[in-house]
Amino acid sequence: MADTSDHTLHSYWRSSAAYRVRIALALKGLPYQQIAWHMVKGEHQQPAYRSIAPFGLVPMLEIDGQRLQQSLAIIEYLDERFPGTALLPVDPAGRAQARALAQLIACEMHPLNNLRTLKRLRAQFDADDGQVQDWYRHWCEEGFRAFEAALPAAQSGGYALGNKPSLVECCLVPQVYNALRYGVDLAPFHRVRAIVDACATLPAFEAARPENQPDAPLATAA
Amino acid sequence: MADTSDHTLHSYWRSSAAYRVRIALALKGLPYQQIAWHMVKGEHQQPAYRSIAPFGLVPMLEIDGQRLQQSLAIIEYLDERFPGTALLPVDPAGRAQARALAQLIACEMHPLNNLRTLKRLRAQFDADDGQVQDWYRHWCEEGFRAFEAALPAAQSGGYALGNKPSLVECCLVPQVYNALRYGVDLAPFHRVRAIVDACATLPAFEAARPENQPDAPLATAA
Repeated sequence: MADTSDHTLHSYWRSSAAYRVRIALALKGLPYQQIAWHMVKGEHQQPAYRSIAPFGLVPMLEIDGQRLQQSLAIIEYLDERFPGTALLPVDPAGRAQARALAQLIACEMHPLNNLRTLKRLRAQFDADDGQVQDWYRHWCEEGFRAFEAALPAAQSGGYALGNKPSLVECCLVPQVYNALRYGVDLAPFHRVRAIVDACATLPAFEAARPENQPDAPLATAA
Repeated sequence: MADTSDHTLHSYWRSSAAYRVRIALALKGLPYQQIAWHMVKGEHQQPAYRSIAPFGLVPMLEIDGQRLQQSLAIIEYLDERFPGTALLPVDPAGRAQARALAQLIACEMHPLNNLRTLKRLRAQFDADDGQVQDWYRHWCEEGFRAFEAALPAAQSGGYALGNKPSLVECCLVPQVYNALRYGVDLAPFHRVRAIVDACATLPAFEAARPENQPDAPLATAA
């Protein structure tokens, strides 16, 4: 049994990318401590954090004497390094399919809608709240449409691939959480909603929820 | 020996993501044919393409009876499926490091600077050429700074990790190619330039260059 007492996730309760890693850690059953960096205050951009996480982004995971950055890279590491619940299929074609769906979210949706992008729209184009919301919805709706078009036929368990959650759900659930914050109408996306509903019944997803993190404001606690 | 006669890359000469996959195919020594979809004309968004590639994005690779989408997922598939030049290190920590550097480009730089994002800036915010260029440079410079800060100490071969190109270079070279098109000053980024210079001496990178693709306009041919 690996010694997991010194796994430390550098995180922010509302970061989608940190949320992905929290889900993966919980699905793997790995205990960890969290250190929070307040993204809205820009703490992740300061030298104290950049000196240990040169990308200046959360999450960063300290594990096995390594400091790992980028949520998908961290999740693949956890899957290669620890037994238990597999986060990716075993066959190359299945792995490619899972990665493609995860990357649709991580490369085509989230980067356009994260905090620093929306801040830049406000700073460079004087975008107001309505324009930021239009921008957010545009990419989110385009992404969810593509996501549903690429999903294989519905499975019995209600998940994206097979009968249990995977890397895909690690990415989808945080994306949906954020989409709801920005008022995206999920009514047209039946499969997306079914997958998220299936995940909501699992303790790993409950433990990873933003509102259940130590740095969440008290008023938001579930 | 696998039958590679029916590997088909759906591509566009100037797509960064397609360029990544062309490099990987060339590093693996896999022959393939290309079918071009003219992105500037929006052909990749039309039903003819979406019916085979539901994300509506290039590249898509037809291989082993599968249709694979998302460049990083395709490259990992090639690495798992075919022997020869390894595109990722063998140890989990090295793989995490390579994926993190690749994802810094694929998740934090490229999505903010690709064609559809820049088109949306023009459409929604009436952005002019100068504003689009400012936006592009901002993310590019921020990304290259983070990339260089996260690189391990320079290696003898001049590459990002170890003494040969990997997934990292598959992503970096196309990103630099595009940055130069948008007038980004690479002078401050010594390591980035050294890595790209090292790759430029390799036949695989030469074969993958946009100007050497069948759908490149004749005037651009190298």
